[in-house]
Amino acid sequence: MATIQVREYNLERTLGAIRSSGPSTTSELTRATGLSRPSINSLVSELVGLGWVDVVEPVLDGQGGRPPQRFAFRSRAGLLVGLDIGVHRISVLLADLDGTVLVDHQVAVDPTLAPPERLGAIDQTLREALAEHGASPQDVWAVGAAVTGPVDATGRTSLFSPLPGWTDVDLVGHLSATFPCPVSVENDVKLALLAEHAWGAAQGADDVVYILAGLRTGAAAFVNGVLVKGHAGAAGEIGRLPVVRWKKAIGILRGDDAGDDELDVDAAAASTTFETARRGDPGARRLVREYARAVATGASALVLTLDPEVVVLGGGSTPWADLWVPEFSAMVGRSVIRMPDVRVSTLGGDHVARGAVRLAMSQVESSHLTGGIRPARARLTDADEGAAQPVAT
Amino acid sequence: MATIQVREYNLERTLGAIRSSGPSTTSELTRATGLSRPSINSLVSELVGLGWVDVVEPVLDGQGGRPPQRFAFRSRAGLLVGLDIGVHRISVLLADLDGTVLVDHQVAVDPTLAPPERLGAIDQTLREALAEHGASPQDVWAVGAAVTGPVDATGRTSLFSPLPGWTDVDLVGHLSATFPCPVSVENDVKLALLAEHAWGAAQGADDVVYILAGLRTGAAAFVNGVLVKGHAGAAGEIGRLPVVRWKKAIGILRGDDAGDDELDVDAAAASTTFETARRGDPGARRLVREYARAVATGASALVLTLDPEVVVLGGGSTPWADLWVPEFSAMVGRSVIRMPDVRVSTLGGDHVARGAVRLAMSQVESSHLTGGIRPARARLTDADEGAAQPVAT
Repeated sequence: MATIQVREYNLERTLGAIRSSGPSTTSELTRATGLSRPSINSLVSELVGLGWVDVVEPVLDGQGGRPPQRFAFRSRAGLLVGLDIGVHRISVLLADLDGTVLVDHQVAVDPTLAPPERLGAIDQTLREALAEHGASPQDVWAVGAAVTGPVDATGRTSLFSPLPGWTDVDLVGHLSATFPCPVSVENDVKLALLAEHAWGAAQGADDVVYILAGLRTGAAAFVNGVLVKGHAGAAGEIGRLPVVRWKKAIGILRGDDAGDDELDVDAAAASTTFETARRGDPGARRLVREYARAVATGASALVLTLDPEVVVLGGGSTPWADLWVPEFSAMVGRSVIRMPDVRVSTLGGDHVARGAVRLAMSQVESSHLTGGIRPARARLTDADEGAAQPVAT
Repeated sequence: MATIQVREYNLERTLGAIRSSGPSTTSELTRATGLSRPSINSLVSELVGLGWVDVVEPVLDGQGGRPPQRFAFRSRAGLLVGLDIGVHRISVLLADLDGTVLVDHQVAVDPTLAPPERLGAIDQTLREALAEHGASPQDVWAVGAAVTGPVDATGRTSLFSPLPGWTDVDLVGHLSATFPCPVSVENDVKLALLAEHAWGAAQGADDVVYILAGLRTGAAAFVNGVLVKGHAGAAGEIGRLPVVRWKKAIGILRGDDAGDDELDVDAAAASTTFETARRGDPGARRLVREYARAVATGASALVLTLDPEVVVLGGGSTPWADLWVPEFSAMVGRSVIRMPDVRVSTLGGDHVARGAVRLAMSQVESSHLTGGIRPARARLTDADEGAAQPVAT
């Protein structure tokens, strides 16, 4: 029994080395894992047989040399779905097992849709994305979905949601009726941070505060390299405290104190204020400064509480970061005892859906770790071998 | 090599089972670890040989039955030191490897002492505590020390400390000159939480907010079962944000707004207000209510940020918890979206020093895990076998 466990552990180590380093030779894998050459040969053969690894034959160099074979992760063995259920928009990304986006499909929806109609629109968007790739739900290895509001262990937003009637929706149950694979749901701000940690401004940092600065102001955090979910999934909601002023932040840009109702936020008014400030208008510049200070109040509380290495700013206000982030940073700097590195997100508007892809990826990875490495071929269809076209993200 | 690793892993599993379950028979260890009987026999023999485990011979039952031998963790194989360097007081606990307190020694010190004199007082207090037990620094396996202020990776409080001149003190270097064993330093509020998690109101909870409510108001947290230290050790300092009102909290009980200087806090005035409130005085009750609300403002921010399972209240104000905790809880309940369980500490006034003992324990435990299981006998002296008297804590 101990022997089998060591074998599985070594299979995972070898697969992990191939995934993290890209196509690798036997010698490279020997160095990366510390295992012997005969062990690596045997482990790689097994991974090829299971469908997780492809042999990349060398290109002869024409000088009689014989470059070694390389072994590559078979990222096209399955698909991941990243779904972002927004108030105004439903986004679906299809990605390979490395998280490379293959399809990006979005539809606008009426913010007042009741749950049955919204679930219908979700299903339709998913069908269209799969059709665009010539794939079926059986080709999907894991689904990650983003919703607004604290997500509990069952994937419900039972505490609150800005979507009408959504607190009673069993999204995992609904999606599982279509997808015979793991389905996970998480809060949208937490998923935006997951994307930043995997591919964006938070890469390599173990202690991170993420602030979504847009039509809503929200927060999420990594502590000791792990996402802070909270006991019932309700972490990151500091913005609900009135002294923190986040509920009013976006309203400041419109020159009023409203903006509590997320279904009725006027994005154009905020953009106009930013643009007017950019042209030097003193009144607009004053509003932008006030906005920066409102965002900074909550950020200071988070920085003092968690002492992060990095604060990442994401969301709809980041295109105007040059106008408000200097004031934001100055204000945080005056309040905290150690100033973190402040970085503006470089991921695009699909950062939440990218985070949902990352959530799906981690489902596939943890199923290696808890279930041992299973055959990948069982889930293979012709579609995976087809004309998958990477889409710029 | 894989075989040796499995052997060490199984040694640690077996020792872990003995430590967590108490004196155990071979059959019990077989069930607890899933290992075979011959494996357990061999592993236990090795642990006895290394000095970590004692054989407890059965007491014959007088009916011809022969109860099995038991194997017990040899908690007296070494000593742990827990040191609390307070503004007004230095406390030293000596404990066995299970954290049972054997000696509790405290001395009052002048709050204005300069570093050399304070280090001299610390050395003297440590010498007296060891002498009380007939032990020497060589009998100590790990030292944990508590100081006020954010503690960086070198054990310094370089960002700030209420102790005069203390930001430049190399406490680890100073103590290492006396103790030839691992020495760790941590912030006092974080150590109070460590003690609550090991032995107090936070046992078994992975997500905890701890609030020190006393002459100072401070915070610490567990997230995902791990202490939140922050990137540079400065987590938990939310009380420095003026809107949080913690710096002024204790001053409220004196009817003023001072109380920023931790060297000059009047504990008697706060106690008097609590006692007057207990006798029903309306003015004092109003001050206590206001104090509860000030503590609750920061607590609400922490609960919204971290969504803990439990909030533990510790510190000097807890003897009057019945007077202020109901108002505190009501106020937090109105601000947060999910109310955690609020618990008042049941550990005594030495909770910080107890946390320092826990820190020392974890040093010994992690040296098993990272260094393999080493002989325990090498560090053994006659003193360990002597008249160690558990002291009520």
